[in-house]
Amino acid sequence: MSDGTRKGVAILGSTGSIGTTALELIARFPDRFQVVALAAGRRTDRLKEQIERFKPLVVSVGEPRDAQSLRAALGPTGPRILHGREGLLVVATAPGADVVLSSLVGAVGLEPTLAAVDSGRDVALANKEVMVVGGELVRRHAERSGARLLPVDSEHNAVFQALVGRERSHLRRIVLTASGGPFRTHSREQLARVTREEALAHPTWDMGAKISIDSATLMNKGLEVIEARWLFDLEPELIDVVVHPQSTVHAMVEYRDGSVVAVLAVPDMTIPVSYALSYPDLLDLGHLPRLDLVAQRALTFEAPDLERFRCLRLAFDALSAGGTMPAVANAANEIAVARFLAGDIAFLDIPRVIESVMCAHQPHAYESVDDLLAVDAWARGLASEHPGKRAAAGV
Amino acid sequence: MSDGTRKGVAILGSTGSIGTTALELIARFPDRFQVVALAAGRRTDRLKEQIERFKPLVVSVGEPRDAQSLRAALGPTGPRILHGREGLLVVATAPGADVVLSSLVGAVGLEPTLAAVDSGRDVALANKEVMVVGGELVRRHAERSGARLLPVDSEHNAVFQALVGRERSHLRRIVLTASGGPFRTHSREQLARVTREEALAHPTWDMGAKISIDSATLMNKGLEVIEARWLFDLEPELIDVVVHPQSTVHAMVEYRDGSVVAVLAVPDMTIPVSYALSYPDLLDLGHLPRLDLVAQRALTFEAPDLERFRCLRLAFDALSAGGTMPAVANAANEIAVARFLAGDIAFLDIPRVIESVMCAHQPHAYESVDDLLAVDAWARGLASEHPGKRAAAGV
Repeated sequence: MSDGTRKGVAILGSTGSIGTTALELIARFPDRFQVVALAAGRRTDRLKEQIERFKPLVVSVGEPRDAQSLRAALGPTGPRILHGREGLLVVATAPGADVVLSSLVGAVGLEPTLAAVDSGRDVALANKEVMVVGGELVRRHAERSGARLLPVDSEHNAVFQALVGRERSHLRRIVLTASGGPFRTHSREQLARVTREEALAHPTWDMGAKISIDSATLMNKGLEVIEARWLFDLEPELIDVVVHPQSTVHAMVEYRDGSVVAVLAVPDMTIPVSYALSYPDLLDLGHLPRLDLVAQRALTFEAPDLERFRCLRLAFDALSAGGTMPAVANAANEIAVARFLAGDIAFLDIPRVIESVMCAHQPHAYESVDDLLAVDAWARGLASEHPGKRAAAGV
Repeated sequence: MSDGTRKGVAILGSTGSIGTTALELIARFPDRFQVVALAAGRRTDRLKEQIERFKPLVVSVGEPRDAQSLRAALGPTGPRILHGREGLLVVATAPGADVVLSSLVGAVGLEPTLAAVDSGRDVALANKEVMVVGGELVRRHAERSGARLLPVDSEHNAVFQALVGRERSHLRRIVLTASGGPFRTHSREQLARVTREEALAHPTWDMGAKISIDSATLMNKGLEVIEARWLFDLEPELIDVVVHPQSTVHAMVEYRDGSVVAVLAVPDMTIPVSYALSYPDLLDLGHLPRLDLVAQRALTFEAPDLERFRCLRLAFDALSAGGTMPAVANAANEIAVARFLAGDIAFLDIPRVIESVMCAHQPHAYESVDDLLAVDAWARGLASEHPGKRAAAGV
């Protein structure tokens, strides 16, 4: 505890959706938490408001000129203001931080998250790429430093809860639920004609464009399978996915006696954020709407169709291949999604791009962030070159 | 462990449904368990088979003449054979028993269960009446001796699992699920005409006549609410019931952050029996059918209708009244169900009988089993006198 009674919190990515949710929660429990450090990218206006409200000791922004204008705006009584890679590393290891919320977007979060893990503190993980790209590395570092990895993603948070107080040897499998996305019942022919606008409408969660597309292709769930493998140190064959359109059950753990422990909640990220920041305590979120199962018509479950949603199969394949392959699949997917959003490739080209890049890659073990960033760059390059629609049109 | 490696088991009620399930399980895991003592009532043929197969050191039967004929049949190499109240107490406290399975039917189980609790060993509780009638006493004794109470009832076992590794202060409420019974969608008019035969057909569980009727009236769930109050030391207002016709979710625990932990399983008593006998280990029941949520059409939940199913309301009322009132409600229900099965009263007379006996009782604190048996006898007497159909017919 930074001042003996309150938990010190550092946030990597404070102006994003998870960062904002965390700060709203912290504002609601001022006697529980103290913000000691914040890092953001380009949203300096929002960061300036956060600094004035939460009074961190150190902050970091992306660019030197944003750091300068923040310094000018906040004056001499403001916090220490840093920028870039160096700034992220300082925030990630800020003195007084009992827990570091890793909620940057993309592979840029990998290095500062590893730094936080190496310092042995609790790391609340909301940055998907960190575990998808470098999960094996993060787990190895956490085992060495004793840092606890507390998942913020609702599915992984649910798995974490369903494992509490249990013996790992008693586990039979974990099951991540997937909403199935907006095209759950689409035929392959319908999927081939899906537009950007259709793909951006998600039934349950309010989220960014990249995640919406990943949710529509089920790649989102595939990436979560890879995350789960490293978060919970589970052999890939112990991880299953089931489609559950109501998104009420977030995950389940099946034990070897046949009992299944499921964790349910309303779809509000405040709950997993709160769980990860307050662990092992649990905050009273009485202000949130409560789950009302009677008001729900029914909870239903379907097997995912790995033919129509090939991205999910590719993610399982990447996990089986191991080593650098998940990083390659993730990078290829990022480029494919960007190209789909730009109108450059069709919806069903997304798995084609990923697969072609995976086929061209010989996976190997990795030792450092640099190793990972090298394959990441290579995969992005190759994914950008895939012909996509031009091939289909015979150009 | 009775012989250093195997867990010693004593079973009160070895020839009933739960006792038989436990022995089948023990036979499947001969290196885990050793049967040290068995008690049964009148089914001496079945008990004789169990003795020959499991070789307990001591057994008990209901009547002296059954004990004599067992002795004659088994010869001088057989176990020590006792009978009656004394025999039950010896089995309940048998040396070498690490866990005592309390699965007698009715209030006769109360005294031996208390004896097992007083001896400080684990007590696997399958005898509903023990906690309904004397729950407060059992809890008090368990707190004194340090005995662990391990629920075998699937709902309470599910609650127990959903509480594992959690802080009690983090709990918001527990929810027991009820199948709703065969008359879930019946109107009051239809309920008034329900016959004995209709009431004995239960959709999911195979069980005895008394429990089938309790399931049809929802008194079964009411008695479970009372059990839960004492098993988990929960204020009555923290216990809810939801109707869940598929009987797949056995119970849920809602935590103060809004997360709900649900425990699901196929409807097979082997699972909770195994959990209670092996706790804190967990047996691999790979031979059982696995829960297949995809094969299920849907999981649905409804609020219970306390007007149509007044027995459930009466059970909550008995719990609020406290002291001896739950014992009175339970005794009145037993007589009312027996009279309904005998064709003496109508289905909707069951709650009328219970309510009239409850109205005539002034609940008071109790100190001993004798106190409880006295109100039990009084309530049975009064319930037997209720006019029932004769009143309705104007006789």
